[in-house]
Amino acid sequence: MVGWRRHLHRNPEVSFHEEQTARFIRETLESFGGLEISRPTENSVVARLTGGKPGRTLALRADIDALPITEENDFEFASQNPGAMHACGHDGHTAMLLGAAEVLSSMRDELAGEVRFVFQHAEELYPGGAEELVEAGVMDGVDAAVGIHLWSQTPVGKVGVTYGPMMAAPDIFNVTVKGKGGHAAMPHQTVDSIAVGAQVVTNLQHVVARETDPLANVVLSVTRFEAGTTHNVIPGTVEMEGTVRTLDPAVRDRMPGIMERVIKGVTSAHGAGYEFSYDRGYRPVVNDDGLTQEIERAAREVVGEENVEVMPPNMGGEDFSAYGQRVPAAFYLVGAGNESLGITAPHHHPRFTIDEDALEVGLKMHLAVATRMLGKGGGTS
Amino acid sequence: MVGWRRHLHRNPEVSFHEEQTARFIRETLESFGGLEISRPTENSVVARLTGGKPGRTLALRADIDALPITEENDFEFASQNPGAMHACGHDGHTAMLLGAAEVLSSMRDELAGEVRFVFQHAEELYPGGAEELVEAGVMDGVDAAVGIHLWSQTPVGKVGVTYGPMMAAPDIFNVTVKGKGGHAAMPHQTVDSIAVGAQVVTNLQHVVARETDPLANVVLSVTRFEAGTTHNVIPGTVEMEGTVRTLDPAVRDRMPGIMERVIKGVTSAHGAGYEFSYDRGYRPVVNDDGLTQEIERAAREVVGEENVEVMPPNMGGEDFSAYGQRVPAAFYLVGAGNESLGITAPHHHPRFTIDEDALEVGLKMHLAVATRMLGKGGGTS
Amino acid sequence: MVGWRRHLHRNPEVSFHEEQTARFIRETLESFGGLEISRPTENSVVARLTGGKPGRTLALRADIDALPITEENDFEFASQNPGAMHACGHDGHTAMLLGAAEVLSSMRDELAGEVRFVFQHAEELYPGGAEELVEAGVMDGVDAAVGIHLWSQTPVGKVGVTYGPMMAAPDIFNVTVKGKGGHAAMPHQTVDSIAVGAQVVTNLQHVVARETDPLANVVLSVTRFEAGTTHNVIPGTVEMEGTVRTLDPAVRDRMPGIMERVIKGVTSAHGAGYEFSYDRGYRPVVNDDGLTQEIERAAREVVGEENVEVMPPNMGGEDFSAYGQRVPAAFYLVGAGNESLGITAPHHHPRFTIDEDALEVGLKMHLAVATRMLGKGGGTS
Amino acid sequence: MVGWRRHLHRNPEVSFHEEQTARFIRETLESFGGLEISRPTENSVVARLTGGKPGRTLALRADIDALPITEENDFEFASQNPGAMHACGHDGHTAMLLGAAEVLSSMRDELAGEVRFVFQHAEELYPGGAEELVEAGVMDGVDAAVGIHLWSQTPVGKVGVTYGPMMAAPDIFNVTVKGKGGHAAMPHQTVDSIAVGAQVVTNLQHVVARETDPLANVVLSVTRFEAGTTHNVIPGTVEMEGTVRTLDPAVRDRMPGIMERVIKGVTSAHGAGYEFSYDRGYRPVVNDDGLTQEIERAAREVVGEENVEVMPPNMGGEDFSAYGQRVPAAFYLVGAGNESLGITAPHHHPRFTIDEDALEVGLKMHLAVATRMLGKGGGTS
Repeated sequence: MVGWRRHLHRNPEVSFHEEQTARFIRETLESFGGLEISRPTENSVVARLTGGKPGRTLALRADIDALPITEENDFEFASQNPGAMHACGHDGHTAMLLGAAEVLSSMRDELAGEVRFVFQHAEELYPGGAEELVEAGVMDGVDAAVGIHLWSQTPVGKVGVTYGPMMAAPDIFNVTVKGKGGHAAMPHQTVDSIAVGAQVVTNLQHVVARETDPLANVVLSVTRFEAGTTHNVIPGTVEMEGTVRTLDPAVRDRMPGIMERVIKGVTSAHGAGYEFSYDRGYRPVVNDDGLTQEIERAAREVVGEENVEVMPPNMGGEDFSAYGQRVPAAFYLVGAGNESLGITAPHHHPRFTIDEDALEVGLKMHLAVATRMLGKGGGTS
Repeated sequence: MVGWRRHLHRNPEVSFHEEQTARFIRETLESFGGLEISRPTENSVVARLTGGKPGRTLALRADIDALPITEENDFEFASQNPGAMHACGHDGHTAMLLGAAEVLSSMRDELAGEVRFVFQHAEELYPGGAEELVEAGVMDGVDAAVGIHLWSQTPVGKVGVTYGPMMAAPDIFNVTVKGKGGHAAMPHQTVDSIAVGAQVVTNLQHVVARETDPLANVVLSVTRFEAGTTHNVIPGTVEMEGTVRTLDPAVRDRMPGIMERVIKGVTSAHGAGYEFSYDRGYRPVVNDDGLTQEIERAAREVVGEENVEVMPPNMGGEDFSAYGQRVPAAFYLVGAGNESLGITAPHHHPRFTIDEDALEVGLKMHLAVATRMLGKGGGTS
Repeated sequence: MVGWRRHLHRNPEVSFHEEQTARFIRETLESFGGLEISRPTENSVVARLTGGKPGRTLALRADIDALPITEENDFEFASQNPGAMHACGHDGHTAMLLGAAEVLSSMRDELAGEVRFVFQHAEELYPGGAEELVEAGVMDGVDAAVGIHLWSQTPVGKVGVTYGPMMAAPDIFNVTVKGKGGHAAMPHQTVDSIAVGAQVVTNLQHVVARETDPLANVVLSVTRFEAGTTHNVIPGTVEMEGTVRTLDPAVRDRMPGIMERVIKGVTSAHGAGYEFSYDRGYRPVVNDDGLTQEIERAAREVVGEENVEVMPPNMGGEDFSAYGQRVPAAFYLVGAGNESLGITAPHHHPRFTIDEDALEVGLKMHLAVATRMLGKGGGTS
Repeated sequence: MVGWRRHLHRNPEVSFHEEQTARFIRETLESFGGLEISRPTENSVVARLTGGKPGRTLALRADIDALPITEENDFEFASQNPGAMHACGHDGHTAMLLGAAEVLSSMRDELAGEVRFVFQHAEELYPGGAEELVEAGVMDGVDAAVGIHLWSQTPVGKVGVTYGPMMAAPDIFNVTVKGKGGHAAMPHQTVDSIAVGAQVVTNLQHVVARETDPLANVVLSVTRFEAGTTHNVIPGTVEMEGTVRTLDPAVRDRMPGIMERVIKGVTSAHGAGYEFSYDRGYRPVVNDDGLTQEIERAAREVVGEENVEVMPPNMGGEDFSAYGQRVPAAFYLVGAGNESLGITAPHHHPRFTIDEDALEVGLKMHLAVATRMLGKGGGTS
């Protein structure tokens, strides 16, 4: 698995461009034998393993895409594609699911039911690959869908499960501040879009700090701010982009209105105009309680009771939510951080990495979950 | 002149890349005959016209470079080079000086002394072309250097002269805000460089509004702010760039210290770091009083007393100041705006243009100044 | 009860100054007969009702102080004391507890155990009256302490209970921005404390918006900002005051450090100094689970199952937490809002009021809780 | 003069309340003999000295009021009235003019014409005392009005004169931010007027930094910001006050509109309302050129040519401008700072003071100006 992970890490491909990645997965799966491999969309791979006995169908999902970040690690296996990096652990997700496919293939006869290995493209880029796979029928006949996220903020050796709401609705917004460009020495003849845009960013901090219930969980991040090309020209426009994360639908519904009020007010204060768009992203991930309980039990077996944590939700978004719209689904975390090795960088950071020991934990979890659901005649409970 | 100007406007080249522009100028000058043409640097052209009688040497200067702006005008002769535009009137300056060279060439015998036509590259980009030309000896033997700037904020038909300080010291600064990147949904694990950078811009407004004498004339413009590439990653750094303009050397000297205090304080407030550099640009343009008086008299002849204005300084910068370090020099404005035709856009604006009638005024001014200085035996009082 | 409440509303007294209020309570309690009335501190009143049979001791608590707000309601019974107002419902708390004392006095023989009616002063002003009462022995021998808060944000007829953490730690901070005063026309000779103080407020918004986990629940409010006396003098100092609310002790511990970093950075950015103090207030209110369950059952009897809500915590603070340090304690909400009557103003608002029908609900809840705990031999299982 | 000045300094009275001050002036003037003393308004004093020969009439003016500042100096003669302080030098102006009255009284016979000593109340508080005195006829028959301002920013021993515009138009504005008050722990139920008000102050910095010509001279200072009374209530309103100073009438005319745009935009951004008023104050002081030349010549006699400075305008305001509406008038500065003695605090600072040696300079200037205008037959060229 370490070899697979490093190969993938070295050759990251951003969302909707996972060509080499998908080919590598297909070829590796083919080498296991006994799997029915398909390609529901151009850059995704599904492998079906039919057990020796009839039973339920469990889908195990890994996402395979990378982020548009330039890696700052200097590993021997660091990204060779400038502007692309596995900075969220999907390389590990893929390696663990390949490992599970290999092991489970070898114990096919003992399984009651089907395991469907879903290597999904484009988790990081809305509208995401999951929706496409659901539409392509990948969830047809599935009784339960389960996914793992490696997590650098949780120590390796631990598993975290969350009942109910687990991940936020990740919406996206774009703002254009429309000032009036001109000579940098004559600001009064311009409407300085950068000065106004900076005020927009600053005033937007009030949305979380002053305008939302402290008991609601809301994030508003401006993540891109682009304006100007040189030192002696005040640019006429600023382009901004960012994300809003919410867990509560009522709070989510209020966000575009509050934001537009702030943006409109601040730009009008300085004689500028604006454009604002707000695009709803994935639905929140809400875990199935029964399935989560199965995972929690499996985790106790794999890592011991003291290493299983019931965790609060987090504000990340995940298109895994699309599977939950169709079948009972649960998503959980496998710790991949290691402070003593300096593996602490947050996800999406250019120095993000994982403790590769986590791969073993993830593999065992996949096997334990599969065994609980498909073992011994295919039943649990 | 209109044809030359439109040709140049259609084919702009940014500072230090004026290859085709310089070739066009050389070829046009050669067509006039009687000029001694040289190329003191790769992209500049100097033409010497030696009069029939001995006398003084007058340098007339035009700057020939364009700005890195993408034109938004839809003229038939609009820029064909995306990302380059004559948005400051240098196309007109060049055309007017070509015109003057042509006319004066034809009346060579009547001139007492020398007219040196200086087609200077790279006015818009520090350290500028003027310094290079001075070092190359272009001012050797010159008794007076005179330059025109077309001015869209002054109506066509008017000429503006300024005694003493006329244009500011245009310094340049760069700021890097060094935060800590990470997942847009987990701001508390990052140091949000965009939020901090916005506060830097906003707090820098105090430098002019609160920290400088209202009787001093200071501009501080942040003209570039670049950060982030996508919606779900908080970027670790912001890159900013901008300009400071001052007329008073003592005020100028205080600026880097005040700015660094503000940047250091604001970034440290939010746990971020910074890099700051401040680069002094051109010296202020300070006009020679006697020479300015000659120009004012010439202007009264050309446009009539009621159309000559003694103007206050402006905050633009000009490497014309380099000539003034070596010889008596004066710079003045020729109106090129026309409200009734909608020609009002400020300099450096993507819709900047000039009323081409101004070219005629500029030509006549060049001729009148040359005649006053070199005519009738080469003397003025 | 309505009469009592209106009398108290008309005559509010701020924290630690509840002289007339305490006298009124004492006199009213004396009129019921059969109560052992004491005065553990100058402005508080405790009445003990000893039942006919032995049993447990239940303390019921009402807070009796008003806020330093000038009322903007124009009720006939509006505050007659400018600068003081019952803007948090303590008038109703007092009236309901008087009502309970009257009714329970009349059924004394049926009670097994003791009911202790605690009319506590100074809930609104740290260090609060509760701590003083605990030190004075008011909780000695008590088996359970229960308190009601009327709540204008919950409709009348409803009761809200919360298991575990219910109210926040309400800390207080003070900031002095130390600039340099001077003539309003010569800002460059001053350090403008108001301009700097405004930046402090604005930058402090980042503490909640950017620096705390979106899953933590934090409030930071600057509630007082005072500077300057006239139009032509820039004041040298700004005085600020405010509150921080947290539910999580680890988050609470980080707050003073983050805030001081922001304040220090922003003031130093502009050449100003600062003073900062951070005073921890009441502990969070954490409800006893068993006792809360009793209250929830009582509520189902009183208002019906559909009108009982298990509520999330809120960010208000309460010195009721002091009782919980000594004995099992639980605090709960009785709805007092009524949108159809326009009774929607938030607590601490100058137009705050309650639907007086809530008094009846509160009375019944006090009686039901007392009966459950002291009725039929004094036991609940 | 030092004694008079210290008496006045110890007993300051704010504008329009100069009762004891005026009585002290009257009594002191009476002690000189030979002056015709009147009281054109309740708190002002005018003394007329008729020379032995006919001639012109010169008005010399001193302002006598103090500022509403609490003194922080610990002089033996520091202010005994908390909340009132001679922090602008009017105590010295009064002492110097008393000195001039005493000396000139003693040389009455040599004077040709009249000297009118005008002790004016209420210079610091619009609409000011000067307008009232003009209306009361104090300027009737006057040929020239001259006033001195002691100036701590100019070293003692120097005199500064300014031709033309010398002091700004000092306008006053008031802003109310109308939010919605409420509990400090529930900001989302409020509109936090302090957070919004802070943004108003911050965004108003753009008016000078971005929206006015760097060649115009503009000051915008918010000098009072009051909101809130305690730590647990978010106040519903903020009251602000401040000043705008301009030298150019066209720039002045634009200010209310720009300011209201900023205030309206920022408050609307956050769902708040506002009230805004802008009151024009004194006219700019514009000195008469001929009279200024006389003063400059007098100054050369008194302090020597090297100690006379032609100074740029300053942004302070002065109701001395009212006299200039009626008669030729000029205002000038007498240095009163002394860095080696630590006398450097700016005007209106609670530690403001003057080097008392300046009183002698001021006296000599009054005498020299009077002698130039009324001496030797009452004429100057």
